[in-house]
Amino acid sequence: MSCVVGELYLVGLGLSPEYMSIKALEVLRTVDLIYVDTYTSYVDLDLLKRLVGRDLTPIRRVDLEERSGAPILELLERGYRVALAVPGDPLVATTHVTLLVEAHRRGIPFHIVPGVSIIPTALTLSGLMVYKIGKVATVVYPKDGVLFEYPYDVIKLNDSSNLHTALLLEYDGEKGVAMTVREAIEILMTVEERRGEGVLTGERLVVALAGLGYPGCTICAGKLKNISNLSIGKVPQTLVVVSPKPHPVELEAMEAISSRWCRVG
Amino acid sequence: MSCVVGELYLVGLGLSPEYMSIKALEVLRTVDLIYVDTYTSYVDLDLLKRLVGRDLTPIRRVDLEERSGAPILELLERGYRVALAVPGDPLVATTHVTLLVEAHRRGIPFHIVPGVSIIPTALTLSGLMVYKIGKVATVVYPKDGVLFEYPYDVIKLNDSSNLHTALLLEYDGEKGVAMTVREAIEILMTVEERRGEGVLTGERLVVALAGLGYPGCTICAGKLKNISNLSIGKVPQTLVVVSPKPHPVELEAMEAISSRWCRVG
Repeated sequence: MSCVVGELYLVGLGLSPEYMSIKALEVLRTVDLIYVDTYTSYVDLDLLKRLVGRDLTPIRRVDLEERSGAPILELLERGYRVALAVPGDPLVATTHVTLLVEAHRRGIPFHIVPGVSIIPTALTLSGLMVYKIGKVATVVYPKDGVLFEYPYDVIKLNDSSNLHTALLLEYDGEKGVAMTVREAIEILMTVEERRGEGVLTGERLVVALAGLGYPGCTICAGKLKNISNLSIGKVPQTLVVVSPKPHPVELEAMEAISSRWCRVG
Repeated sequence: MSCVVGELYLVGLGLSPEYMSIKALEVLRTVDLIYVDTYTSYVDLDLLKRLVGRDLTPIRRVDLEERSGAPILELLERGYRVALAVPGDPLVATTHVTLLVEAHRRGIPFHIVPGVSIIPTALTLSGLMVYKIGKVATVVYPKDGVLFEYPYDVIKLNDSSNLHTALLLEYDGEKGVAMTVREAIEILMTVEERRGEGVLTGERLVVALAGLGYPGCTICAGKLKNISNLSIGKVPQTLVVVSPKPHPVELEAMEAISSRWCRVG
């Protein structure tokens, strides 16, 4: 009697399905079942389906987070080879790491196909040096009237070592929540007004990035006071706060990239 | 009379040619000429040639760095569409960013195809949280008897905020230089002995990564005193110094991944 065990594939889709790797495509074309995480970031499901040429099942946040990936683990234990396709890199979200750990506990082999992640691509696509990456934070909406000051403190910490801060903005595909750069700046400036530590002034250099990997993507560099007035359509959006003393090559690269991709509408 | 202008494509190959994106492959198959940077990191040129199905020209470091990309810029001004294929992400090395800036100065349109970079993939493939990424440093061999202490200071700085340190190890494909994890640890421990600040003890948790993206890759997590004895064959190699207080989920994920990919020989 043999004991059938499946295999788990955590597959990164990168910035968009066109940016998934040859290896990712190969895996998605050969596994038994494909689940897609559509809630941690935006994925063009139609484009993904067209590229892979197979049926895909979006997985719900509740199935992965509250039920600890139970639907996937059951299939794995029944001997299926199951892929979980994830926008960006598959091991950035803790919930996917937890699934890997749980599979390992049960003796189920797992594979990882890395993908292009917004960290540190937000920096390199801004023209900034990745060696100067600082701690990363997510800007979230106030909850029950409570304003989360954490990203402000992270910027302040990174500033003290002249590092760049990549800020992820709250996103929940299921709830239709996608914070814009404009909203993020408003939240950060509210913290600045309260704290008054001069971390974020209107003169501060920032880069707004939106819809990376999709047609019509936007990369706009400028002073905070100018960027705060931009109206950028595409999601997901990201905000990079440039280190206090950028290198001259960084300034030139920011200008070159921004003059090419700063589409506003 | 029209003025013919070429187009520059900076194309990331990711961890290995199999990890380049569908978009990267499409670009490499349609441009007029392909140059490949083979000196900043390892690329399997035969595999790349097979996947792209076309001729490739390795570009020399001197042509890009000392001659500021002159051979490429000349072709662009003569109207050719030229790709520079780069292992990892194309904008991580300053020399490639400079080429982009120079193209922009001359009014030559440029395109960027991001690739999976060792930063922050070294962290996620170690099972560590990317939000806790700290400043990145490169460990280099002593030059003329001078030992560079910079990476030691970066680890110390990141420690103070409980951040992980991804260390790149000196690599020069042209000169056949590829530092191993073992050598990097020796260099770091020499600094520790000199400084005596207790940043790196034998009990410190680290992760050794080698040959990522290629068959037989290695990911070994453990105490510094044990990892320093490992003999890992493949290049390029990377060393991650885990933050002083890793999260329990990080420890579980490190263990799961290491028990799967820690091949030593």
